[in-house]
Amino acid sequence: MSGRVDVIGLGPGAEDLRCPRATLALAQATDLVGYVPYVERVVAEGGQRIHASDNREEIMRARLALQLAAEGARVAVVSSGDGGVFGMAAAVFEAMDHGEPGWRDLEVTVHPGVSAVLAAGARLGAPFGNDFCVMSLSDNLKPWSVILNRLECAARGGFAMAFYNPISRARPWQLGEALTLLRRHLPGHVPVIFARAVSRPEEAVAVTTLALARPEQADMRTLVIVGNAETRLIPRSGQDPWIYTPRSVGRERA
Amino acid sequence: MSGRVDVIGLGPGAEDLRCPRATLALAQATDLVGYVPYVERVVAEGGQRIHASDNREEIMRARLALQLAAEGARVAVVSSGDGGVFGMAAAVFEAMDHGEPGWRDLEVTVHPGVSAVLAAGARLGAPFGNDFCVMSLSDNLKPWSVILNRLECAARGGFAMAFYNPISRARPWQLGEALTLLRRHLPGHVPVIFARAVSRPEEAVAVTTLALARPEQADMRTLVIVGNAETRLIPRSGQDPWIYTPRSVGRERA
Repeated sequence: MSGRVDVIGLGPGAEDLRCPRATLALAQATDLVGYVPYVERVVAEGGQRIHASDNREEIMRARLALQLAAEGARVAVVSSGDGGVFGMAAAVFEAMDHGEPGWRDLEVTVHPGVSAVLAAGARLGAPFGNDFCVMSLSDNLKPWSVILNRLECAARGGFAMAFYNPISRARPWQLGEALTLLRRHLPGHVPVIFARAVSRPEEAVAVTTLALARPEQADMRTLVIVGNAETRLIPRSGQDPWIYTPRSVGRERA
Repeated sequence: MSGRVDVIGLGPGAEDLRCPRATLALAQATDLVGYVPYVERVVAEGGQRIHASDNREEIMRARLALQLAAEGARVAVVSSGDGGVFGMAAAVFEAMDHGEPGWRDLEVTVHPGVSAVLAAGARLGAPFGNDFCVMSLSDNLKPWSVILNRLECAARGGFAMAFYNPISRARPWQLGEALTLLRRHLPGHVPVIFARAVSRPEEAVAVTTLALARPEQADMRTLVIVGNAETRLIPRSGQDPWIYTPRSVGRERA
């Protein structure tokens, strides 16, 4: 048998938000590689060898996957959401790019999944109904100055924004500084959504405004969404409002 | 029976890239509302009443869906990819926001799907491995000046970019002008991907550079991806290269 690597996006959490193609690739794997909680999510399903590792070890994990595949294994590398959006896909290609020349000949398939940004957006309406950007606020892999510049560009461009990795014990102040920067460029009424673990039993969603948003409303499992100046709320009785960004800019409304 | 609206992302095309939750909601619908080719994709599955309409009639379509639901129907509004990303979700909430007050009390669920941007990214590697933005290049709903400003902000921010609606018979020059603007801000070696109908039988993918990209390489079903200055190619023999954007900026490589 010749080895291969399947980079699999598990979706946001709920099993019926995982694509059948991803489920099939998981079932066919001999080896499962991933961050502990994601591997645990699927481990009951197969008889695979398990290679679970800690967070922030993406490159070691990617190298292990390629090595196992080079030895003939059929390796599933799992990510939450979509592997291409702050998941394992880029790490696998980085490891291939800088690793053994033979790894480039391995068969690799990236199976897309419903990313957290899409699941969180759908949960509250359509905050990404116009142009938007997706960023990681972690400065583990890029200088904070790069992040600040991106935030400023996103605000000046009028993009709605989604922030992965907004805060953690090791990065307690970054989200607060990001919100401070955004308040200099955007009106205080801009909707802000804290969407934690959407589609999972522990889901928690809070809606506020840029003026009122506090960093403590996020943890490392929260996706933070910031609308643009045109993003609107539709109040509902007894529920969170719907939030949507109109498809038009500076035109007559519908 | 009380009516409801399910806004359903069908995924990029392949049936096994559609979430089981979306498939179930489709099966339970009494009425199917959408743009003709998307409705045709699912029409064989149920015994639903069909309300297919032409492109660019999103608001009329959304109003029809809400009206049918108000009359007690269980309406599935279908979009290709994810309904929240240049699909029908924003149109449904716009119609609700400016329509009959009673429509706000209707039960509405947005079911996320694998968007074209995620499917196209996965097909070629991991071009969205770092911060990225998603834009529509259509100036039907926003002034071209807004689009140019967003492109400039995206380039200055170092975002990778994905463009929906890059070109059409009625909008033949916009993509060329967008590429010209980007060439003023980004190096010519930046990878550009034309990804048409990914995961469908008529899929066609082409990889080039910003210096060489020509608008004629896109049509209205093409998603155009532009990397950032760090996006890398991994050549493969006999196949398109892998394309990925490193997770790090300005740091030691893996």
